[in-house]
Amino acid sequence: MPVLVMKFGGTSVATPDRIKRAAKRVGLEVSKGYDVIVIVSAMSGKTNELVGWVNETSPMYDAREYDAVVSSGENVTAGLMAMTLQEMSVPARSWQGWQVPLLTSSIHSAARIEEIPTHNILAKFSEGMRVAVVAGFQGISQEDRITTLGRGGSDTTAVAFAAAFSADRCDIYTDVDGVYTTDPRIAENARKLNKISFEEMLELASLGAKVLQTRSVELAMRYKVKLRVLSSFDEPSEDAGTLVCHEEEIMESNVVSGIAYSRDEAKMTLVSVADRPGIAAAIFGHLSDAGVNVDMIIQNIAEDGRTDMTFSCPTEQVMRAERALQEGSSKLHVNFQQLIADTNVAKISAVGIGMRSQSGVAAKMFKTLSDEGINIKVIATSEIKISVLIDRKYMELAVQALHDVFELEKTP
Amino acid sequence: MPVLVMKFGGTSVATPDRIKRAAKRVGLEVSKGYDVIVIVSAMSGKTNELVGWVNETSPMYDAREYDAVVSSGENVTAGLMAMTLQEMSVPARSWQGWQVPLLTSSIHSAARIEEIPTHNILAKFSEGMRVAVVAGFQGISQEDRITTLGRGGSDTTAVAFAAAFSADRCDIYTDVDGVYTTDPRIAENARKLNKISFEEMLELASLGAKVLQTRSVELAMRYKVKLRVLSSFDEPSEDAGTLVCHEEEIMESNVVSGIAYSRDEAKMTLVSVADRPGIAAAIFGHLSDAGVNVDMIIQNIAEDGRTDMTFSCPTEQVMRAERALQEGSSKLHVNFQQLIADTNVAKISAVGIGMRSQSGVAAKMFKTLSDEGINIKVIATSEIKISVLIDRKYMELAVQALHDVFELEKTP
Repeated sequence: MPVLVMKFGGTSVATPDRIKRAAKRVGLEVSKGYDVIVIVSAMSGKTNELVGWVNETSPMYDAREYDAVVSSGENVTAGLMAMTLQEMSVPARSWQGWQVPLLTSSIHSAARIEEIPTHNILAKFSEGMRVAVVAGFQGISQEDRITTLGRGGSDTTAVAFAAAFSADRCDIYTDVDGVYTTDPRIAENARKLNKISFEEMLELASLGAKVLQTRSVELAMRYKVKLRVLSSFDEPSEDAGTLVCHEEEIMESNVVSGIAYSRDEAKMTLVSVADRPGIAAAIFGHLSDAGVNVDMIIQNIAEDGRTDMTFSCPTEQVMRAERALQEGSSKLHVNFQQLIADTNVAKISAVGIGMRSQSGVAAKMFKTLSDEGINIKVIATSEIKISVLIDRKYMELAVQALHDVFELEKTP
Repeated sequence: MPVLVMKFGGTSVATPDRIKRAAKRVGLEVSKGYDVIVIVSAMSGKTNELVGWVNETSPMYDAREYDAVVSSGENVTAGLMAMTLQEMSVPARSWQGWQVPLLTSSIHSAARIEEIPTHNILAKFSEGMRVAVVAGFQGISQEDRITTLGRGGSDTTAVAFAAAFSADRCDIYTDVDGVYTTDPRIAENARKLNKISFEEMLELASLGAKVLQTRSVELAMRYKVKLRVLSSFDEPSEDAGTLVCHEEEIMESNVVSGIAYSRDEAKMTLVSVADRPGIAAAIFGHLSDAGVNVDMIIQNIAEDGRTDMTFSCPTEQVMRAERALQEGSSKLHVNFQQLIADTNVAKISAVGIGMRSQSGVAAKMFKTLSDEGINIKVIATSEIKISVLIDRKYMELAVQALHDVFELEKTP
C-alpha cells in the first residue's frame, strides 16, 4: 500500500482532545488506502518544562543526559496517539527512536540522521498494522545513547521517514494553514501560496519564515519528498495548505513569490580598516571561528588606504562578534578605528525563482523603498533572493510596499 | 569495589532541588568507596499526570501503549539525577530500562523481572564511572516493547538490582524515616524499629503498611538482600531507618513487632447457605475466578442443614463480589437467603515472629479488645500474625490499646 507521512507539531497535540482531532485526520488517510507513518512532537509546553528542569539542574549539562531527558515528551505523545487511533479501531502502535531504530550521529542535541531501517515497520504494515506512530526529534547513537536532532527536529524526522519509505507525500500539520506571500499580520492582503518551490521555501525558511525548519526543506529537496504544510485546525480538503515541490511542478508563478523579514539581524561596522589584500579573509575567518554567523557583507570604496567594512549577523551574536573583533584586532593585526553595532535594523527579502529569468526585480525593489523614503543600508543577493537591511522602524512599511508593488495578492 | 543500591521515591525527587539533596547522599556513599546504582521514581505527581492523560484518551487502553507512556516519568528523573551528580563531579550516567536491558515478562503494566544483565553497567564501573542512575519501574519484553512493573515497581527494581549485583545493601529512600510499631498518627508512642525480619515486613506490607511493596520484600527475602528503609529528608546517619533482614540478625525483639490496620476491607455475609460438602469450594472458587481477593473466611455452626458464611475482601471489590455471587447463585446451585455487605469495618493485625514460640498472644489480643468493649467480627491467623475485623469506629482505639498491651513503645 502507498505510504503517507503525517507530522503533528506541539500545538496540534497539546491535549488528549487535540490528539483525537489529529487522529481523525490520520484515520481519513487510512480510509483512503494509505499506510501512515505519524511523527509527533511533544505536547506543547512539555519540552520547555523539561528544558527548564535541565537548566535548573545543571547549566553546563551533559548533552547526552539532556537528550535523554528532553526526548521523553515525544514518547508520551506517541503512546497517546497510538491509543487514540486504536480507540477509533485503526490498528496502530507507537515507536520510540530506539525501537525503529533511528540511527544518528553522536553529536548530541544536534544529531544528524544516518539511517532509518524500514524492515521493522514494514513487517508490521504487512501484518495489518495501518499506522506507525513515531516519536519525533530523537534517535540513538552507535553507543546506544539517546540523541536529539535539535529544536524543530520533528520536521526533519518526518521528511527523513518520507524519504526512507518512499512516501507519496509528507504532510506537516502545524498551527498555520500554509506558506504565505508574507506575514499576514503585517500585510492584510497576504495570500496563501498553493505551491512553492523547494529553493524558495529554503530561502524563506532561512530568512525568518517560521513554518518549516531549514534542514527539513533541504532534506526534502535532496530526496525529492513532496512536502505539504497545513493546519490541523482547518477542515480537511484536497487543496489545503501549501505544497513544497520542485519548480517543474509549478505551472505559473509570480516573479517574486514572497517577502520575508527578520528583526533579529544586527549591522556591525568596522570603521577605518587598513585596506590590504587578505584583510576581509582575516576578519571573516576569525568571526566564523568564533561562531558568528555573518550574513551580508559590504565594503566601502577605500580612501587613503583605509576603508569601512559592514556586515550583518544575528542580534544575539553581537556581543560575541565584538569580543572576537577586539581580540582579533591585535592577534590578526587588523586594526580599526571604531566598531559600531546597530541593532535597530531589519532585514527585508524578496524571494522568487522568477528572478532567474526576469531582470529588473532589484531595481524595482530599490525604487519602491526609495519612493517610501526608506534608506537601504546593506544589500545582498542570490540567484532567487534580494535582501536589504533597513531601519527597523520602516520594516512594516517596506514589507507592505514590496508586497503591493510585486502584486503578491494576485494569483498568477 | 562494593556495590550499593539506593532507591529514591517520587517525593524524594519531586524537584531539581530535592534531586540535588538526594544526589548529595549518593555522593556520600561514593566517597565511602561504593559503586552506587541509583534507582529513581518519577518526580511526584508526574505519573499521575500521565495516567490522567491515558484515561482521558482511552479508557480501554492498550497496556503496551500505557507502559510506553507512563514509563517516561522515570526517564526524566534518571537524566536529571545523572546531571546533578556530574555537576558534583561524581562520574555518573543514566540508563533507561531498554539500555540495561532490564528484561521482563510480557505482562504489560504488571511485568515480572526475568533478567538483569550486569555486564554493561559493570563495564562502565570498571572504566571509572561511579554511579549508574537507572529509571525504575520499567523494563522491556522479548518483543522489545516497554513494560512496567506496576505501581511501586521501583522498589522491586531496586531489590532486583541489588540481587543481580550482589550489593552490600539496598537503601530505599522515602518520605518516612522507617518502619514503625504502628502508624504514629494513631498511636503517639509508636516507635521506629531499627530492625525487622523479612517475614514480619511481608505481613505488615500486605496488611496495609505503605512503606514497602510486598513484591519487593518477597524478592529481598528470596535473594537475601539487606533492605533498609529510610527518609531522604533526615540527616544521614549510620543507624537511620529500619533494616529489613533475616530474623537471625535480630538479637532481641518483642513478641509482637507491629500493629497494622486497614480501612479498605469489607465484610460480606451469605445468610442461610445450604451446608453441604463442597459448598465453600464452590463459592470461593467462583469468587476467585471473578477476581475477588478474599482474605478472611468464617463459617458459622450449621443449624437445620443451613449456615451463614462470612468473608472479607477489599472494599473496592464489593460490587464485583456481589455480582459474582448473584450470578453464581443459580449457576453453582448455591442458594442463600440474603447477601449482606458491611463496609463499615476495619482490619487490625498484630504481627511478630515471637508468636511462633510464645503462646497466649491471641488470647491477650482478644481480651484487650473485649476490655475496650470492641466486638470481633472475624478472626484470621497465620504463624506470625493475628488479624481481626472490627467496627471501623473502634479502629484507632483498638490500635492504641493493642500497642499499649504489647508494650511496643519499649525497646526490647
